[in-house]
Amino acid sequence: MIAQHYKDMLGAKSVIRQISEWSTARGAEIGYENVFDYSLGNPSVPCPPQFTAACEDLLAHTDPVKLHGYTPTLTLPSARKAVAESLNRRFGMDYTADHIFMTTGAAGALAHAVRCVGVPGQNIVTFAPFFPEYKPYIEGAGLTLRVTPPRCADFQIDFEAFAQLVDENTAAVLINSPNNPSGTAYSEETLQQLADFLTATSTKYGHHIFLISDEPYREISFGGRVTPYPAKFYDDTLTCYSFSKSLSVPGERIGYVAAKPRCEDAAYIVPMCGQISRGTGHNCPSSLIQMAVERCLDMTSDLSVYETNMNLIYDELIALGFTVVKPDGTFYIFPKALEDDAKAFCQKALKYDLALVPGDSFGCPGYFRMAYCIETEKVRRSFAALEKFVAEEYGVTKH
Amino acid sequence: MIAQHYKDMLGAKSVIRQISEWSTARGAEIGYENVFDYSLGNPSVPCPPQFTAACEDLLAHTDPVKLHGYTPTLTLPSARKAVAESLNRRFGMDYTADHIFMTTGAAGALAHAVRCVGVPGQNIVTFAPFFPEYKPYIEGAGLTLRVTPPRCADFQIDFEAFAQLVDENTAAVLINSPNNPSGTAYSEETLQQLADFLTATSTKYGHHIFLISDEPYREISFGGRVTPYPAKFYDDTLTCYSFSKSLSVPGERIGYVAAKPRCEDAAYIVPMCGQISRGTGHNCPSSLIQMAVERCLDMTSDLSVYETNMNLIYDELIALGFTVVKPDGTFYIFPKALEDDAKAFCQKALKYDLALVPGDSFGCPGYFRMAYCIETEKVRRSFAALEKFVAEEYGVTKH
Repeated sequence: MIAQHYKDMLGAKSVIRQISEWSTARGAEIGYENVFDYSLGNPSVPCPPQFTAACEDLLAHTDPVKLHGYTPTLTLPSARKAVAESLNRRFGMDYTADHIFMTTGAAGALAHAVRCVGVPGQNIVTFAPFFPEYKPYIEGAGLTLRVTPPRCADFQIDFEAFAQLVDENTAAVLINSPNNPSGTAYSEETLQQLADFLTATSTKYGHHIFLISDEPYREISFGGRVTPYPAKFYDDTLTCYSFSKSLSVPGERIGYVAAKPRCEDAAYIVPMCGQISRGTGHNCPSSLIQMAVERCLDMTSDLSVYETNMNLIYDELIALGFTVVKPDGTFYIFPKALEDDAKAFCQKALKYDLALVPGDSFGCPGYFRMAYCIETEKVRRSFAALEKFVAEEYGVTKH
Repeated sequence: MIAQHYKDMLGAKSVIRQISEWSTARGAEIGYENVFDYSLGNPSVPCPPQFTAACEDLLAHTDPVKLHGYTPTLTLPSARKAVAESLNRRFGMDYTADHIFMTTGAAGALAHAVRCVGVPGQNIVTFAPFFPEYKPYIEGAGLTLRVTPPRCADFQIDFEAFAQLVDENTAAVLINSPNNPSGTAYSEETLQQLADFLTATSTKYGHHIFLISDEPYREISFGGRVTPYPAKFYDDTLTCYSFSKSLSVPGERIGYVAAKPRCEDAAYIVPMCGQISRGTGHNCPSSLIQMAVERCLDMTSDLSVYETNMNLIYDELIALGFTVVKPDGTFYIFPKALEDDAKAFCQKALKYDLALVPGDSFGCPGYFRMAYCIETEKVRRSFAALEKFVAEEYGVTKH
């Protein structure tokens, strides 16, 4: 008999997807080049040529029985070792292969991390604005997601509001830095304060509260800065990563969980991931892709277009008088809408062929997201539409 | 805090894995070529050259942003369409792309199928001998696995024993034909009788009892026969497939769920799979691999070695007086041990560098599995060891 629970989920269509579908339909009418589609967070740059070369070389020179054979339950040892060494080199950590578990992207990493440190009935606390898929990810493991209201002035943490949501049933705290949708990264001060709070609260409740750090945008960091690495600050940290954005290979579904060597039961985390996989049907990412990323750990696509676009859009928004926090990374920006109802704001923008996403589904009403992983030329062309939109609808003109 | 449930699972080591690890260790001592390792079901033949060519061509001629980009939530439309057409051509079915959902191998397919048609607290009935991973797969979805005792004379279904296990809480029946570990396929008569039983029982309990058909070995079929296709016989069938064995690409984790167009709520199954993925962290198989298999649907590796090996081993076992059902396919054979305790039997075999797996973990004590996905030359060489083993330990000599 059909499982009603999943059938019922079909009714609720994602707002992002609806707007994206509108863009596609509108593009069919007037040419997609004339739709200013800021709806979807899809990388717009190609993978580095070294990734393609790694795949080609593996296909040409590796015994196919080995290349396409089962990787061990705990995933490919050489890839796990290479990831550990790369993280150690870049962030001064002390991971070994035993702390790394390769996953099908960040979604797979989060599915394992949540099940490692939480049991059904517990809660996980995150911070608005947040990636809406966190809800099904957490609920799919039988836990509840609690959302700390946003601190809109800078999108750092409102510790007072946060503290009220943490209780004896809190399994973990889930952060995303740099953040989708705001583009802001947590400062070292924020991360230190969070670590101090979690240490004190773990002692108070008599169990380790884990930090799950979702970092798919870590390598898209602006102004030449390195995004502070959360696991540096707190021992009980599981880092969830995806190569989707750094290597522009989202369809290949490749990432990892990294357990900090000083976290609770560090030696068990990866073997437990192997057990969790059995219950969810995960069973390792593609062997070819594991081998290919192993060769590309310290490189990225040319990600500079995202910073170029961010600076153009940020300056334009400021010139138009928008309230907006300057992103530290990602390919998102999250300004305040020009009316309280961001859904109405984004609906009106569609008349000007501007596809913007209201902040409501990110837990932050009154704001909207622009995903600027598009051509810079199109960003420039979109400004006339944006100016016409805010002038006609809100009487706003450029300073 | 560490999830105790998964930590506890670490204690129980798979017997197959233990024996496989013994083989590897013994191989390091005496040379792996001298260990007759019948423990693991890993394809031993390379993928067809067309699969490698498809990957190479895609890498050389497809825009990398498209090639490695996100596939839609319901997986790649062109691959889904191609799978539907291939099944229609080969088995006279009437699938469309809407009935196919690409998954990360059979494990991913089963994870979706089980969650589509069962809810926590229900049970799923399978048949011994059975693939031991069914237990964590089913329990991971919150359901209970019930195992029908084996009908050892021919490894078809003991309908009397089976009927006693089906009740109002039965969500589905899970079959695996051709079967791991027995190598036998269900006959058309068995499948028709099963369909009739499920139709009557669904009516009796007032809900559709689904048939989940796990078919990773479908293409390894001996004697030029086509393995009967279970979905032909029963409308409420979800077919779970993996290309691991047919294309020898187990590490690529690629397969599908196919919902029969006349099953309950057929139009909802694939969209529901998309929702299920969110909760388990599945999120589509590799885009490159989806595109590559799309081009290789009607071909297989050269699988003839498995039939060659089967015939050699079957004849040898018969000559030694073993009780054994001749396999219809797969790369397994499942003879009766020469003493009641198959674990003791397999333990003694190790002294002769023969790695055999006792049937206990397959729900069939007293039998043992040989996975003959190894070189034919090694199969031939193993017979001296086998003959020495049964002569010295059981006083058995060749007829």
